[in-house]
Amino acid sequence: MKVGERYYRSIWQNESDRGSVHVIDQRRLPFALEVMTLTSVDDVYEAIRGMAVRGAPLIGATAAWGVYLSFMEHGGGKKNLRRNELSGGDKKDDNSEPVSAEDVYKAVISDAHRLRSARPTAVNLAWAVDYMTGVMKFFPEEGAMRRAAEGLCDEEAERSRLIGVYGLPLIEGLSTRKGGETVNILTHCNAGWLACVDYGTALAPVYLAHDKGIKVHVWVDETRPRNQGSRLTAWELLNHGVPCTLITDNAGGLLMQKGMVDLVLVGCDRATASGDVINKTGTYLKALAAFDNGVPFYAALPVSTFDLSVDRPEQVEIEERDAGEVSAIDGIRIAPEGVHVSNYGFDVTPARLITGLITDRGICRADKVSVLKTVS
Amino acid sequence: MKVGERYYRSIWQNESDRGSVHVIDQRRLPFALEVMTLTSVDDVYEAIRGMAVRGAPLIGATAAWGVYLSFMEHGGGKKNLRRNELSGGDKKDDNSEPVSAEDVYKAVISDAHRLRSARPTAVNLAWAVDYMTGVMKFFPEEGAMRRAAEGLCDEEAERSRLIGVYGLPLIEGLSTRKGGETVNILTHCNAGWLACVDYGTALAPVYLAHDKGIKVHVWVDETRPRNQGSRLTAWELLNHGVPCTLITDNAGGLLMQKGMVDLVLVGCDRATASGDVINKTGTYLKALAAFDNGVPFYAALPVSTFDLSVDRPEQVEIEERDAGEVSAIDGIRIAPEGVHVSNYGFDVTPARLITGLITDRGICRADKVSVLKTVS
Repeated sequence: MKVGERYYRSIWQNESDRGSVHVIDQRRLPFALEVMTLTSVDDVYEAIRGMAVRGAPLIGATAAWGVYLSFMEHGGGKKNLRRNELSGGDKKDDNSEPVSAEDVYKAVISDAHRLRSARPTAVNLAWAVDYMTGVMKFFPEEGAMRRAAEGLCDEEAERSRLIGVYGLPLIEGLSTRKGGETVNILTHCNAGWLACVDYGTALAPVYLAHDKGIKVHVWVDETRPRNQGSRLTAWELLNHGVPCTLITDNAGGLLMQKGMVDLVLVGCDRATASGDVINKTGTYLKALAAFDNGVPFYAALPVSTFDLSVDRPEQVEIEERDAGEVSAIDGIRIAPEGVHVSNYGFDVTPARLITGLITDRGICRADKVSVLKTVS
Repeated sequence: MKVGERYYRSIWQNESDRGSVHVIDQRRLPFALEVMTLTSVDDVYEAIRGMAVRGAPLIGATAAWGVYLSFMEHGGGKKNLRRNELSGGDKKDDNSEPVSAEDVYKAVISDAHRLRSARPTAVNLAWAVDYMTGVMKFFPEEGAMRRAAEGLCDEEAERSRLIGVYGLPLIEGLSTRKGGETVNILTHCNAGWLACVDYGTALAPVYLAHDKGIKVHVWVDETRPRNQGSRLTAWELLNHGVPCTLITDNAGGLLMQKGMVDLVLVGCDRATASGDVINKTGTYLKALAAFDNGVPFYAALPVSTFDLSVDRPEQVEIEERDAGEVSAIDGIRIAPEGVHVSNYGFDVTPARLITGLITDRGICRADKVSVLKTVS
């Protein structure tokens, strides 16, 4: 989406340099737009692990490029690759030293294994890495590997765009009902283009509505403890020109009581077969407030986010994160020394509070029948 | 309550110096326990306005001492006060220049008027100031004025203690039901002894239970944007030796879903005749989560906090506070430049979500009949 006058994706490769990919260092936002150039699988590992890139789809996309870069590093891009150990291909000579295709394969698999461990719970990460090593097995060539990584990114962007397309009528409908007055949408955390490759999940319908000239305004929860709302979502929206207002996580309830919210739109880290949504901690509280005030509450997600192996949300283990996220901010301590801290990263919004799930295959109700119909 | 081995109130006068009162500078907590000495009504005005002291009961108590200090500054404490313009009293001579009682009265009334404006919405502030000027009208003497201010502080402390006494059986009951296991209590904002003169409102039952040897543990909401939870409540509890854990405002929902909260106890800035509670923004979200998970939710307040002129919460105007509280922390900017911010200070918890109200006259149900019976 737009940053000022320029369009960005959250990850891209320049045609002029096939040995690197570029991402935005999200740790520096919103104060600096700093592009990181990743030239090795180690760079990719550190970018994912250090959270320069975050958001399940973007982590997956970055990891895919990580396998590509590993392949290039180990000489897989060289024309004189000796392919005898793998099926197909002609032997060609150029001036560089020949590399064994088997050696390349082994080295990349080893890197891929490490890459999968960069973040513990990201399903997309493992999936993207496995996809790329699968491609390598049958098409161990720079062009094929590059097109696989590019294709994975394009598909992510398209999935997000489709979520936008399916979510757009909700906003259009609210706008019509309000006689064209501004539609106020509350969101939690960051489920925008920075988390994905483009568009986002929860924000995709918002961008499409805005670009279509529908008046929208977004209430942005700051999203403690990591403040993805104030750091990323507000930055995204401001730069694309979408009117927005930053609020504390405590504020949404009152705004709904006062009739100042028309729609709640959030992303989703994982959804159960029953339509329960596991998302950033605090989402559940917003769903309760929406339900209590008759405000529609939607979660947006690609169908790949459904985890059909999970039926009841109690089966999901909730990640406990570092205490320092709560007790300090930008290295400044904000809590008394010695205080014990608990920091669960996610909570569960039960299906009964969810008006619907906006997926890349259309909107589905938050119940087992609808979910299975949408996924299958 | 205790800070280490020493007992503190949040405001006190030393017998050796009748020209000053002492408060804890709460802006410096939790990193430094700094005692401020207030020697003039201007000091008091600045301490209230600058939020060195906060919490309705403490603001009232400080303002009462402010009127006392104004009286002393303008010479009201001198023995040779010429009282002819006011009723009663003998003329006595000492070595200092005589002061007209009428002049003192006028000067104090003028100070009192200014003092009332130090914080816009604090009912206790106006009440305490008016009480002290009333005392001055009939007993314009240092001793009477001092005893009035001391009495007001003692009454605040006693009201808090009584809230503790009436709330204690709730915690005892939960402890018994759990076979003596730790009772987990969630609280929002600071409704402890720092906000009051001693004990607190929501925390009074907790302190009494702890001091009685009942195992309690408090989940402390950090309470964005001003972080009274992490800065004050956690500090109070730590120093008194009550086990506690700091959490983000987003976390309480999940903890209740997981059965890790036995009771929610909050303070209250204002309560309607119908039993609705206006308290720090975010309280409503915790009440919704408590209701959804079958966790009892109590607000603690002296009966003076009921505003019987308000029946429906929509009649209450909610204070909008400075945007800087959200976009920066300790002067460090945490949101993008130019982002619009909304910062309502309070929200409304409807009576239907409240299990009961713990007052200094006993526990009452959150409905009109019970409230009127308790107040009258």
